[in-house]
Amino acid sequence: MGKKSVLSRWIFWTLIVLTLFFFGFIIGWFAKPTQPKTEHHTESSRFLKEFLEGMKAQNIRQHLRKFTRLPHLAGTEQNLKYAAQIREEWQDFGLDSVDLVHYDVLLSFPNKTQPNYISIVDALGNEIFSTSLQEPVPDGYENVSDIVPPYSAFSPKGTPQGELVYVNYGRTEDFFQLERQMGINVTGKIVIVRYGKIFRGNKVKNAILAGAKGLIMFSDPADYCADRVQTYPDGWNLPGGGAQRGNVLNLNGAGDPLTPGYPAKEYTYRSKLEDGVGLPKIPVHPIGYHDAIHLLKNMGGEIPPNNWKGALNVSYRIGPGFINDYKSLTVRLNIHTNNQVTRIYNVIGKIRGAVEPDRYIILGGHRDAWVFGGIDPMSGAAVVHEIARSAGSLLSKGWRPRRTIVFASWDAEEFGLQGSTEWAEENAKLLQERAVAYINADSAIEGMYTLRVDCTPSLHTLVYDITKQIDSPEEGEEGMSLYESWHKRDNWTNNRDAPRISKLGSGSDFEAYFIRLGIASGRARYTKNKKTERYSSYPVYHSVYETFEVVDRFYDPSFRRLEAVARVRGGLIFSLADSLLLPLDVNEYADALDKYALSISQIAQRHPEEMQKYRVSFDPLFSAVENFTVAAGDFHQRLQTLDKADSLQVRIVNDQLMYLERAFIDPLGLPGRPFYRHVIFAPSSHNKYAGESFPGIYDALFDIENAADPERSWDEVKRQISIAAFTVHAAAMTLTSPA
Amino acid sequence: MGKKSVLSRWIFWTLIVLTLFFFGFIIGWFAKPTQPKTEHHTESSRFLKEFLEGMKAQNIRQHLRKFTRLPHLAGTEQNLKYAAQIREEWQDFGLDSVDLVHYDVLLSFPNKTQPNYISIVDALGNEIFSTSLQEPVPDGYENVSDIVPPYSAFSPKGTPQGELVYVNYGRTEDFFQLERQMGINVTGKIVIVRYGKIFRGNKVKNAILAGAKGLIMFSDPADYCADRVQTYPDGWNLPGGGAQRGNVLNLNGAGDPLTPGYPAKEYTYRSKLEDGVGLPKIPVHPIGYHDAIHLLKNMGGEIPPNNWKGALNVSYRIGPGFINDYKSLTVRLNIHTNNQVTRIYNVIGKIRGAVEPDRYIILGGHRDAWVFGGIDPMSGAAVVHEIARSAGSLLSKGWRPRRTIVFASWDAEEFGLQGSTEWAEENAKLLQERAVAYINADSAIEGMYTLRVDCTPSLHTLVYDITKQIDSPEEGEEGMSLYESWHKRDNWTNNRDAPRISKLGSGSDFEAYFIRLGIASGRARYTKNKKTERYSSYPVYHSVYETFEVVDRFYDPSFRRLEAVARVRGGLIFSLADSLLLPLDVNEYADALDKYALSISQIAQRHPEEMQKYRVSFDPLFSAVENFTVAAGDFHQRLQTLDKADSLQVRIVNDQLMYLERAFIDPLGLPGRPFYRHVIFAPSSHNKYAGESFPGIYDALFDIENAADPERSWDEVKRQISIAAFTVHAAAMTLTSPA
Repeated sequence: MGKKSVLSRWIFWTLIVLTLFFFGFIIGWFAKPTQPKTEHHTESSRFLKEFLEGMKAQNIRQHLRKFTRLPHLAGTEQNLKYAAQIREEWQDFGLDSVDLVHYDVLLSFPNKTQPNYISIVDALGNEIFSTSLQEPVPDGYENVSDIVPPYSAFSPKGTPQGELVYVNYGRTEDFFQLERQMGINVTGKIVIVRYGKIFRGNKVKNAILAGAKGLIMFSDPADYCADRVQTYPDGWNLPGGGAQRGNVLNLNGAGDPLTPGYPAKEYTYRSKLEDGVGLPKIPVHPIGYHDAIHLLKNMGGEIPPNNWKGALNVSYRIGPGFINDYKSLTVRLNIHTNNQVTRIYNVIGKIRGAVEPDRYIILGGHRDAWVFGGIDPMSGAAVVHEIARSAGSLLSKGWRPRRTIVFASWDAEEFGLQGSTEWAEENAKLLQERAVAYINADSAIEGMYTLRVDCTPSLHTLVYDITKQIDSPEEGEEGMSLYESWHKRDNWTNNRDAPRISKLGSGSDFEAYFIRLGIASGRARYTKNKKTERYSSYPVYHSVYETFEVVDRFYDPSFRRLEAVARVRGGLIFSLADSLLLPLDVNEYADALDKYALSISQIAQRHPEEMQKYRVSFDPLFSAVENFTVAAGDFHQRLQTLDKADSLQVRIVNDQLMYLERAFIDPLGLPGRPFYRHVIFAPSSHNKYAGESFPGIYDALFDIENAADPERSWDEVKRQISIAAFTVHAAAMTLTSPA
Repeated sequence: MGKKSVLSRWIFWTLIVLTLFFFGFIIGWFAKPTQPKTEHHTESSRFLKEFLEGMKAQNIRQHLRKFTRLPHLAGTEQNLKYAAQIREEWQDFGLDSVDLVHYDVLLSFPNKTQPNYISIVDALGNEIFSTSLQEPVPDGYENVSDIVPPYSAFSPKGTPQGELVYVNYGRTEDFFQLERQMGINVTGKIVIVRYGKIFRGNKVKNAILAGAKGLIMFSDPADYCADRVQTYPDGWNLPGGGAQRGNVLNLNGAGDPLTPGYPAKEYTYRSKLEDGVGLPKIPVHPIGYHDAIHLLKNMGGEIPPNNWKGALNVSYRIGPGFINDYKSLTVRLNIHTNNQVTRIYNVIGKIRGAVEPDRYIILGGHRDAWVFGGIDPMSGAAVVHEIARSAGSLLSKGWRPRRTIVFASWDAEEFGLQGSTEWAEENAKLLQERAVAYINADSAIEGMYTLRVDCTPSLHTLVYDITKQIDSPEEGEEGMSLYESWHKRDNWTNNRDAPRISKLGSGSDFEAYFIRLGIASGRARYTKNKKTERYSSYPVYHSVYETFEVVDRFYDPSFRRLEAVARVRGGLIFSLADSLLLPLDVNEYADALDKYALSISQIAQRHPEEMQKYRVSFDPLFSAVENFTVAAGDFHQRLQTLDKADSLQVRIVNDQLMYLERAFIDPLGLPGRPFYRHVIFAPSSHNKYAGESFPGIYDALFDIENAADPERSWDEVKRQISIAAFTVHAAAMTLTSPA
């Protein structure tokens, strides 16, 4: 071969080599994705399935058994021991960090040497009857010490004595009826009311406003016994010797009464007791229906309307005072309860987010119980424990959520949501900037019928999605999803063909997160059939009979209902923590606002002349809601074209979703309630448990009927409409394109 | 060749081909960067240089000339015309969007047919002297209509008449001295005070608290004339016929007095005038020093201490009332000013961010002027105009900032920062979640000496960086940087060897952004030599003599000082908008907190016995600051190892930087001042203009000296220390690792 030939051969081969290399390079270049795009979605779904199926009824049963052997009131050594045990077990489960976080808050305990009771006293001062000093202890717990007797936490000390007046449930309307229709003034009297319908703290507030000098609350069988059910231990009804413990504060979200707005740490300024938030000014005490009969049976005065009558074999006369031979007798409360600054402990466990560690999904529920806490709260705490275990087990298989998950075991919920509120206060800035959602985990069961969910509207769709992936726990419903079972039992008839979801009220630990900070929140539990079961909450609520056995024998012998609740709560936090796009539905919020605006305007429309006279119009609110609806629709539309591979664009959209709930917070708070700041959802001033939509407008309208100066009151309605309209407009702005 | 040979050849070549392709593929794969890494930094620096150099003195001169021809008081047609013109020009400059945004707020105007004045009245009711109804109009403006005469905006109507009492500057300490040392009670008297030292609204508040029924404020030459300077038009001193307009509100950040907390839109509820925020209850009127002589010269009573004496040829006797022959004369205010809900207009221009459109850098300054606004505010507005022009020009060259820039021309600043506050209220949620920084652009010049910067500590480093890139505007300083020129003239002697930077007080439009919302803020302008020039603000402040000419002839004939200010303000917004990592320095904040904590504790240490008696300790605050310092140091450390190619990690760190300032906001506000919520910086209750560090503690300590119940007052000091300590701890938490 000649030189030329060799050269051209070289050139030829070099070209071939370069060309091949070039093609390889180009294909390699383009084959590589710009973003590390994984099979995230599929993988996440697979882990979700494994996570849900990992939660087991029998484990929940064991957790519940373990944590209900001994009373563990907030502030006691036993409750700290359980905290330490939970920390240890969460660590063993594999959580990244678990800490005890303490606060020194105002609690309230009976005096151990001077018991509280109520007595009937004759003219000579002899006690001719006294209420029982404790509940009969249930079988198997005879040797347990530290069972706190029934009491009203934060009652002041005192021995007020006077004539008894019966005021039904002690609601605003009951006192009005008493004063206006029955013409009875309770100034200087002892008021007796039955438990139920509204939060007991509101009963106390109403009694104080009416001028009473003491308050007795009793559990009437009409409200605390189900039909055709035996009393505990033969069934799950409240025995006559049982009574409902509970705090009688009017905190309105303040947390520790001495440190409103700030965490109760060592360095924190504490107000004097007389300046404490929400502390009642009159002695209060709770009794069971056996004792109540003795107080009620000889009462004088008129026979009340039927809806004031309970199920006891007495006349429910109103008083004041006793009848005939008993006329000279009076009633005395003997209260020696002490307020005391006490250390409490939250357990805070974390699973660090892999991609966005600065986004938090919180699953929190309390640990402190009045006695054993068989239902409240340990049915919920056992569920949280199982969720943490299942999540830890997933971590060991290589899973790690996109966002951070926080598990919380709150302390001192029973004393006014203190553990959860103090933690929210200490972490307010972080939560405001970073918290995606809060799922509450109080009692997981209060009935045997179906699922109950209360949540912010943007969580509706996720709740439906998750419940479709969970099996019904009911016998005979094999192959049916929880969604179908729930849908069948509790359809949202008036509004839509789907299972009913309710508004969040208050009375549990989500309050600081939802109503003060504006974090999307929800709760789920198993419940009774509201249409047929008319008793209040569940019969043994806050009594010594809330044992492990009441769940194990009656409420959920297979523990499959608690398992289902665990999967709902767990599924929610999993999806919120691991979805690329946050599973929050802005269109659902728009629909809800629309419904609420109509509903509040209809309440106002009961006064058409005054609305005209004072020129009250809901048009600004309707127009704001319309504006929001358009913005939500547009936002939803834009989601469809989002480049999911662009991590910054995804973050921007997720921030909008996360901050939507925050947009409904008014930093100025509701009138007179600086820590209730959610303009769309808060309890009405008249009943802490009931979640009202547009609570500012609602309360202003509620006051209309009793207004001394109607012009001023309607003016307040107008002001509240204006605030609501502004807030909805502002929320709409957060959904529009960011610049 | 045999078959085998052909086959093996094929195999050989196939292997070669595959190997080459494989190598190419591998190299191509790894050669491609995961993130689109551009030469962002270099490119951004180049654009910054171009941006700064694009701003030209002569353009600023033209803008100033254009916008100072006619009076443009808030609420007038002319001020709307200027708004429309600015909108048009910003659009022409190339901004992405420019909108007029209106609000209907409470303004205050003199009655056109019934002028305001002050008279000396004899016993028969004859007015033997009356103050002038207007200022002598400067040359060249004789035919201009709509020059509003000097008045105190929001003064109530009224004609209070009585004896005159002179109370120096009308400060808290002046009234105390008057009452306690001089034994004079001003109840039912007319008080006369000189302008200066504190915000005029505080003078009014003090006079009302002291019981006065009317207040006169005058400009004393001691406070409104510089040495060896002629009066306008021969120099820049205030002529004797000039007087200072200004509002006399005590808004404490509320914005529109009738809609505190909410934007004054069409649908917004307005309180009744008597419930309006901060409206003074007594008539008030301002006069010049020629008129003041007539009121002061015949006053009786004691001769005051020297520090109560101004520079007029009168004795500055305190009164009450007149002397000798004039004893029967009294003084009457004749005030007919009207409050009126009036439409105002902000101009809002935007440049959309390319990468993070949901992060905002705001450059805002007001447009409304008392008359021509030669200095206040148009020297600042002209600068903003030139910055917008230069930014627009950069856009046309392919630049687009990483984040969104917002340009704002606020209305009704002179009536209580209303335009800026209402916009902040309407956009509060967006700003809270997305605003990185706010740079204020009020008057750009108030002296001829050097630069003055007031800003949040985290901006210190950026201010130094930027000023090093700008030339000194001073003659004879060619080749010297603005930083060096400034450093030479105003070194931060006690603290560090660098140009002095001060705390932000109040009195301009940054207030709602900084003190209410907690957005990192700063301002820059050219100023006088504080050591040698003792007059208040600048002599012609708020008079008709604030013309184009006062700038063009005296303050900045070359317009190079304004050019330098434009480059500082512009450089700040450019860097904040375009840097990958936000140029905010957390270590500077730590240093500042350390200094402030020491300083406030030293004020308390003036009362060592009481501190011991009431057990007041600053240790919790010191320990919180130490904690913050460690967190800031660690954060800064982590920045060094940050993977800048990971856009999510960068965003997470930037969010921490952005939200640091927000962490100092207490949603409950300072005591009695719900819209002043910054725990580190707010004006003291006693002087709006002075920025105090730890204002809550400062105010509590200020009150100690006049406390009726020292225990209660020291208790408040303790409470404020606790709040400060908590806030600093909470801020430290936001800097720690996110999960």
